[in-house]
Amino acid sequence: MRIAVIGLGLIGGSVLRAFARAGCDVSGFDADPRVRDAVAEAGFEVTDRDGCAAADVLVLAIPAPHLPSLLPSLSDFPGIVTDVTSVKTPVADAMKRYCPAVRYVGGHPMAGKEVSGFAASDASLFDGRAWALCLGEEVSRAQELDDWVTLADLLCRMGVRVVPTTAARHDDAVARISHLPHLLAAALTRTAAEPQALTLAAGSFSDGTRVAASDPYLVSAMCSANAEALHDALDDCLAMLDEARRKLTASRQDLAEWLTPASTARRAWPPRAGTSHTDAVTRDKLLHIGVVGGWVESVHDGRAEILWRVPGDSLP
Amino acid sequence: MRIAVIGLGLIGGSVLRAFARAGCDVSGFDADPRVRDAVAEAGFEVTDRDGCAAADVLVLAIPAPHLPSLLPSLSDFPGIVTDVTSVKTPVADAMKRYCPAVRYVGGHPMAGKEVSGFAASDASLFDGRAWALCLGEEVSRAQELDDWVTLADLLCRMGVRVVPTTAARHDDAVARISHLPHLLAAALTRTAAEPQALTLAAGSFSDGTRVAASDPYLVSAMCSANAEALHDALDDCLAMLDEARRKLTASRQDLAEWLTPASTARRAWPPRAGTSHTDAVTRDKLLHIGVVGGWVESVHDGRAEILWRVPGDSLP
Repeated sequence: MRIAVIGLGLIGGSVLRAFARAGCDVSGFDADPRVRDAVAEAGFEVTDRDGCAAADVLVLAIPAPHLPSLLPSLSDFPGIVTDVTSVKTPVADAMKRYCPAVRYVGGHPMAGKEVSGFAASDASLFDGRAWALCLGEEVSRAQELDDWVTLADLLCRMGVRVVPTTAARHDDAVARISHLPHLLAAALTRTAAEPQALTLAAGSFSDGTRVAASDPYLVSAMCSANAEALHDALDDCLAMLDEARRKLTASRQDLAEWLTPASTARRAWPPRAGTSHTDAVTRDKLLHIGVVGGWVESVHDGRAEILWRVPGDSLP
Repeated sequence: MRIAVIGLGLIGGSVLRAFARAGCDVSGFDADPRVRDAVAEAGFEVTDRDGCAAADVLVLAIPAPHLPSLLPSLSDFPGIVTDVTSVKTPVADAMKRYCPAVRYVGGHPMAGKEVSGFAASDASLFDGRAWALCLGEEVSRAQELDDWVTLADLLCRMGVRVVPTTAARHDDAVARISHLPHLLAAALTRTAAEPQALTLAAGSFSDGTRVAASDPYLVSAMCSANAEALHDALDDCLAMLDEARRKLTASRQDLAEWLTPASTARRAWPPRAGTSHTDAVTRDKLLHIGVVGGWVESVHDGRAEILWRVPGDSLP
């Protein structure tokens, strides 16, 4: 199973390192010759266009805005294509448009760093982290489930928690856990942006606003690519804050009751792995595991069986 | 100058340790005999009612809800009284009511921990942190400025940044930097509280929701004590989020422009100390230093002069 990673920045470089650490046959390509030199110097195999074309699995790790210019060149690729971008519906749509025959399975590793570039890449970046891996909204092609399991098997060897999902469910989730936090952090920073307040600010401000320091253009591109789901998430959040506003003027008890579900949920986070279950691979089973907050930890028996867990020991 | 600290939990215990480390003559009292034993075992002086009455400076470090029951017993105290509670207007009002003749100067150290109790106290908890120290809204008594400077001198020896402010300005600032983050963290947690989202959640969710795990009743008590200022802060934040909602549906450029002021402000945070300035102590000068984001670092020349700084080198 030959894997080729295209784009060797922070994420692509870390994917290359993590697959190499897991003993996989992996090579990488980057459009920038200086990056290719750095990758070769670090002891990894650098490949070319022909090498990528001969791979069994292609991991696209270039920024989302660059994907449309690359995709047409992949329309005849016979292997499995996956990617690592943070919003899945637009990529799935672009694949349908430019590469309708390609065996595409969208992916998204839930890990990152404040810094970018191959120099910041790290073989352990994804250890124990969730990696969303999408199934189509409807069964669109016969091989899809096999390809999903092939990728899940590779990713499990890398040590991640493979979360079965669909592009729409993924995009709704990241709107709430990743994109909305950026809007709240920015609004909080602007609400507190007054010299004396900034001098007095400590822990709760620091944590609540950390991601506000991100590049506004990158954040805007990410949020805009998921505008519809983010709009819904923001509306839900605004409705909650309106409720908090009313509770604040009502009574201390009312506000405490409003705060309690969040306190309970946050104390239970991050989800702790319960006992493992082994099951036959089916599309419905995988999607159900994802919906209940579970993940796949390994693939067995010639890829016919999965070992999966849910948080705690709450069997669905 | 004899200092007595009443209430030896996390904050009071840390105040006792920090004053002792700075070489001050300090003792402590706690209503709980087990706490007094632990404090004595740790090598600190434990005092009693008479010892507190004989102190020059009394630091009230008991929880805000317990203050009203203590204050009447202090009405004849001849020294300076300060406190460490997180909302200043209600304490100033209670002092006026129960101890109108007492030389009260409200204080609030901007530091804390997730854990409580003397066992968690730490002499370095306040190192380099801001400590708000209030002047009355109007000059209410002749000695106020002298008492403020006496306390500022002691606190500067402890290694904190003394921020001159008024109770109202302080309460407005903490509504924005401390109380609002709790409401946003709770709303964000509830908006994302769905099993798959919680399994996919990573850094931005983790930081943006950390304080949501706090005790809902303590947070509600804190927010309710500052309800008016928090209401205004929440309204400002809701207006910003409504603007973000419109920008999100407008254009990527519009959203990036909305995000930019927050990114600039957050990258400049925490404020870095500029060069120091020495000035004569006056009430107007102190309040001005606070308004422009500055702080007092030491008191000199028989308490006639202060050394102060503002963030960066931006002289007001």
